[in-house]
Amino acid sequence: MAAAATQQTFDIPKKYKAIVYDKPGTISTKIEELDTPEPGAGEVLVRLTHSGVCHSDMGVMENAWRGLPYPTQAGQVGGHEGVGIVYKLGPGNEARKVKVGDRVGIKWVAFACGACLPCLEGRDGVCFNQKISGYYYPGTFQQFALAPANYVTPIPEALSSEDAAPMLCAGVTTYSALRKSNAKSGQWVAIVGAGGGLGHLATQIGSRGMAFRIIGIDHGSKASLVKECGAEAFLDITKFDDKTIAEEVKKMTGGLGVSAVIVCTASNRAYAQALDYLRFGGTLVCVGMPEGDPQPIAKSYPTSLASVAMEHTIKGSAVGNQKEALEVLDLAARGVVKTHLRVEKMEKLTEIFQEMSEGKMKGRVVLDLQ
Amino acid sequence: MAAAATQQTFDIPKKYKAIVYDKPGTISTKIEELDTPEPGAGEVLVRLTHSGVCHSDMGVMENAWRGLPYPTQAGQVGGHEGVGIVYKLGPGNEARKVKVGDRVGIKWVAFACGACLPCLEGRDGVCFNQKISGYYYPGTFQQFALAPANYVTPIPEALSSEDAAPMLCAGVTTYSALRKSNAKSGQWVAIVGAGGGLGHLATQIGSRGMAFRIIGIDHGSKASLVKECGAEAFLDITKFDDKTIAEEVKKMTGGLGVSAVIVCTASNRAYAQALDYLRFGGTLVCVGMPEGDPQPIAKSYPTSLASVAMEHTIKGSAVGNQKEALEVLDLAARGVVKTHLRVEKMEKLTEIFQEMSEGKMKGRVVLDLQ
Amino acid sequence: MAAAATQQTFDIPKKYKAIVYDKPGTISTKIEELDTPEPGAGEVLVRLTHSGVCHSDMGVMENAWRGLPYPTQAGQVGGHEGVGIVYKLGPGNEARKVKVGDRVGIKWVAFACGACLPCLEGRDGVCFNQKISGYYYPGTFQQFALAPANYVTPIPEALSSEDAAPMLCAGVTTYSALRKSNAKSGQWVAIVGAGGGLGHLATQIGSRGMAFRIIGIDHGSKASLVKECGAEAFLDITKFDDKTIAEEVKKMTGGLGVSAVIVCTASNRAYAQALDYLRFGGTLVCVGMPEGDPQPIAKSYPTSLASVAMEHTIKGSAVGNQKEALEVLDLAARGVVKTHLRVEKMEKLTEIFQEMSEGKMKGRVVLDLQ
Amino acid sequence: MAAAATQQTFDIPKKYKAIVYDKPGTISTKIEELDTPEPGAGEVLVRLTHSGVCHSDMGVMENAWRGLPYPTQAGQVGGHEGVGIVYKLGPGNEARKVKVGDRVGIKWVAFACGACLPCLEGRDGVCFNQKISGYYYPGTFQQFALAPANYVTPIPEALSSEDAAPMLCAGVTTYSALRKSNAKSGQWVAIVGAGGGLGHLATQIGSRGMAFRIIGIDHGSKASLVKECGAEAFLDITKFDDKTIAEEVKKMTGGLGVSAVIVCTASNRAYAQALDYLRFGGTLVCVGMPEGDPQPIAKSYPTSLASVAMEHTIKGSAVGNQKEALEVLDLAARGVVKTHLRVEKMEKLTEIFQEMSEGKMKGRVVLDLQ
Repeated sequence: MAAAATQQTFDIPKKYKAIVYDKPGTISTKIEELDTPEPGAGEVLVRLTHSGVCHSDMGVMENAWRGLPYPTQAGQVGGHEGVGIVYKLGPGNEARKVKVGDRVGIKWVAFACGACLPCLEGRDGVCFNQKISGYYYPGTFQQFALAPANYVTPIPEALSSEDAAPMLCAGVTTYSALRKSNAKSGQWVAIVGAGGGLGHLATQIGSRGMAFRIIGIDHGSKASLVKECGAEAFLDITKFDDKTIAEEVKKMTGGLGVSAVIVCTASNRAYAQALDYLRFGGTLVCVGMPEGDPQPIAKSYPTSLASVAMEHTIKGSAVGNQKEALEVLDLAARGVVKTHLRVEKMEKLTEIFQEMSEGKMKGRVVLDLQ
Repeated sequence: MAAAATQQTFDIPKKYKAIVYDKPGTISTKIEELDTPEPGAGEVLVRLTHSGVCHSDMGVMENAWRGLPYPTQAGQVGGHEGVGIVYKLGPGNEARKVKVGDRVGIKWVAFACGACLPCLEGRDGVCFNQKISGYYYPGTFQQFALAPANYVTPIPEALSSEDAAPMLCAGVTTYSALRKSNAKSGQWVAIVGAGGGLGHLATQIGSRGMAFRIIGIDHGSKASLVKECGAEAFLDITKFDDKTIAEEVKKMTGGLGVSAVIVCTASNRAYAQALDYLRFGGTLVCVGMPEGDPQPIAKSYPTSLASVAMEHTIKGSAVGNQKEALEVLDLAARGVVKTHLRVEKMEKLTEIFQEMSEGKMKGRVVLDLQ
Repeated sequence: MAAAATQQTFDIPKKYKAIVYDKPGTISTKIEELDTPEPGAGEVLVRLTHSGVCHSDMGVMENAWRGLPYPTQAGQVGGHEGVGIVYKLGPGNEARKVKVGDRVGIKWVAFACGACLPCLEGRDGVCFNQKISGYYYPGTFQQFALAPANYVTPIPEALSSEDAAPMLCAGVTTYSALRKSNAKSGQWVAIVGAGGGLGHLATQIGSRGMAFRIIGIDHGSKASLVKECGAEAFLDITKFDDKTIAEEVKKMTGGLGVSAVIVCTASNRAYAQALDYLRFGGTLVCVGMPEGDPQPIAKSYPTSLASVAMEHTIKGSAVGNQKEALEVLDLAARGVVKTHLRVEKMEKLTEIFQEMSEGKMKGRVVLDLQ
Repeated sequence: MAAAATQQTFDIPKKYKAIVYDKPGTISTKIEELDTPEPGAGEVLVRLTHSGVCHSDMGVMENAWRGLPYPTQAGQVGGHEGVGIVYKLGPGNEARKVKVGDRVGIKWVAFACGACLPCLEGRDGVCFNQKISGYYYPGTFQQFALAPANYVTPIPEALSSEDAAPMLCAGVTTYSALRKSNAKSGQWVAIVGAGGGLGHLATQIGSRGMAFRIIGIDHGSKASLVKECGAEAFLDITKFDDKTIAEEVKKMTGGLGVSAVIVCTASNRAYAQALDYLRFGGTLVCVGMPEGDPQPIAKSYPTSLASVAMEHTIKGSAVGNQKEALEVLDLAARGVVKTHLRVEKMEKLTEIFQEMSEGKMKGRVVLDLQ
């Protein structure tokens, strides 16, 4: 519908800078110059300006994550929280929903087919034909990327690109987990790891965005952050054992326990405890996934037996779908949720992973790709 | 994944036969020869072998249907229940889910974008960017049609093409209405117009496919058809007035009334009656849409007041989505639902519409396009 | 379980004061002295201290409301928003959940059997065996009332009795309507009559309690009240006609329309307009019910046809159930919702109804029965 | 409403026969003569004619079941699938829904308060104030029992008392589990232990009552029983290992896996296997609960990690609620589900438990208490 006159055009360089994993299995990245690709049918070319750096990127780079079937190859461009401008459209009808000049995002699921059963059920996060950004498909740690015209994520005007980036993975993942909890406004929801990268978003989204009453659970040092994020109550994990933590949560909730628990950490102990303070009919949502040795979710049958008697539900939540991405971006644009982040240059990525690896990272890092 | 050796190829003629509406506003069709088109990016070329003839096609041809914004143009190829073989793929990633040689269907919504809010919510039947087969977009009354690679509907192997065709509109429409009724297996559901084109499918799907207890409501002449379709009870509409019909339905249902009513006719009286035999918390689903003078759904506020007190729900149901199309095709392939139909040649279409117009049509007609 | 020592006992007078409708069909009430009744099996005796005065009470007194089957009898004690203290338990197991000294509420549905199908489905508001407080069952405009031990509504400690009273009808009715709308947190919901008795509660509950984005619709004079109640946007009904109001709402909502409309007024025009600014798949909830001449909900079939195409849902919402009563009382106790009210003496009831009848009433009146 | 003339009266003996656990912890029962009790407020006196014998009764008698907090006392009357005639009403309003002469059932949850949060949410199976029939509350292995007037379960006229009895625990438990699975009609559901006491009911209810496509999984000797019960496919558990069973189920379901698994056995191995053949977004419902050593549900994190990626749900299902009891009784009355059972005399109960203990029991036993 837009008149030809209003159509923007952009100069597209022949070469551009990308960060690749040069030695997968270790913490090591390298900046390379690549040829700018041409968008094919149904594709657009995106000039990326920002990309969030996620803990999962490190898992991919280090081959540390048991969920992935194949080892990462040298030369892989990582990253899956990319934001940029559409510079060029490929041929085909599909492209017409996106215009040159639009600001769009690229997510962990970089491509979903839209036609398989998961896609038709709104579970594009488990699309049978999905391509993963930054894992066997070029990611967002680069200045130019190809993306499907009908699966890029439009970014609301009111939201800066650096604030948008973490919404595309961390944001939508926690948003989706909260939705899947089936908790209703006014009910108590516990966020385990409430002060962490995922948890501080879950706390904001759950309290301000969904009107849940949030109990944030984390180390005492995170208390003030968690309260600022909107938690009505905070529970210092270091002050309770497996038994007393359940008693404490019940005390806070009028004896009932919480309607849902969102476990944002990868701690086995957190999972085991959570069932004990979940109310009848409540839901435990598993978000955090450990990288280390395999462990059972529920310690033992007496625990699960109690869960049967209590009619508990345990749910796995993958990355969220495109609709949820739009919804969490809307929350961010309206100021309901804001990531604690700092912006760094492309050259810093190896250092950033190092910092992450040593557990020193505070908040999220967003790369400036300009 | 298929090796090149197994890839089928087909001879594609330069010209093919299509049926067009030559004088929209009247009942008149003409066979023309058209140039075979080339599939563009994201498209496939389908060699159609069968197309159902739907009452809505007549509405489009006659400009009789108030729901459509613009008058139909001369030269329009009608039809929206098409089945055929993919003869050629256009360029682009999207095409890879469909292979040359696949048997596929084309529905009322011939194209849905997959990216707008309705699509993301699984309501592709109300896609903001939809194209309607046979209305301002070439339909299925022709031997060749272009279709989007990621929105054609795969046809199960066990189902003949002629039996598949009516599932693509009549089948999915009634299936979707029954799903939207929120009735649960074991509950009573009334089908108004149970012996008609939509109703006899709704009766089969509801009884055998969803384990509802069906009360078929129609003229007495349809009693045996409706019983064969699986209705547990039949109610001859000619033997009751507005008051006694409600009493009769309540008697059949232990005093309660039905959990849902699917109104498959366009009768205002049917709508007004239905609220009176709907149980508390029940749902009235509007499927049949009249072509004549506008009328209120509910006669008057006392009716709607009673509906408020009874916590009734009234729902409009459009054409159903792609997922529901797959599900109703699966039911048909398993023999759970079968359309009463006869197959006719392309040349007969004007006569078929004439018969439809005179109310003499029994069952559905499927055109053989070969 | 409580030891005998902690069991409170109360002096119960032989006689007490009640307000009766002495001339039903007119606005007239009289204070009478009645004998204090004995609680039977499964009953408790409640010393009422406060009762809200609801517009429906006036409908019952005046025989003005078409929803009620029989004319009100002289001597009827009206009222259905009562709060008081349990003074005595009747015999029977059922009583054990309530203790002498507990503060409890009595609602429009004063008794629900707990065993019929509506009760088993959580729709005790349409219980087949219900007794209506203040209509063929003694209401809450009196100092003592009998109530079922297992259906009185516990009042949270943090909530004053006068603030609790309106929650028992106006509060739970709007809360229930918002729940039934199926709107999700973050979505736009329009409240029609947002500055009225029901509407100002719906606005608070919807915005602060459920995280909806509220568009309040009412006369311009209510703008500041509606904004204080949490509406994100206000629309002055006097400045728009049937066509422009829909355009305005769509402009406010990014072109879509609202996900739900809660019609809190009894205006036919409001109902007719609402369907035009409801987004695809949206829900219209009918709360306000007119007392005058019967009128159709939807003007005409073109409207309803559009609604079918848009997959709209129209829902009647009765008074809400016991669970929802607990939930809205919790919101009130936490300060999320607060009724605009003034407290008056029993002697003032006729005057209050007069004021209500003349449309001069601002906010709600709660009677002090002490 | 019934006129006095039609009111039945029954001769009530002073003494009656009951079977008690005389040596809890062992398999031993004894018939004793007890005084017939008087129904209190809200109660009815039921002349029991039949009681099913459930595996859980044995768990209670033997103190073998870890889910129960206290050891069973000598003199306990067991049983929780009782059917009989109301002989007398106690005082109180509550009684009016049941009439003398009504045929009613008593379930595992013999009493639910109707007022606690679980009851208000329709989860009366986890009522905070529940009384368990046959465990610290007199059960149904006796000729007379007291029961709450508003919580006895009405028995449909068309259903014999002996066929009704097993519906009250085994029937409603499996029905509830199938409902909680969230599977939709037309989807594949696996029943593990499909030929057992619970499984053969789940198979019938799932296939004929809910229109699921059932894969029955059990030992080969059960194949014909499972097929007769309506399973579309049977899988002989002895012919597959942990890996090949998943492959086999996927082959049967077009590569997808099943939408739900109902685990009716207490086998840890069954639980661990089930997650491997559950499709994306599918639900595992835990019904069977082991009596032996505690074991984890999911073997290890890799399993649960896959479950997260697949967005699986794991649900505990307790005994079902009163509404579900009415629904499964209706299915039984309509012949949709029928228990394989034999009727035995009261004197045989010890022998029956012996047979059960030795794993020789085929089908269910119903005691004739007349």
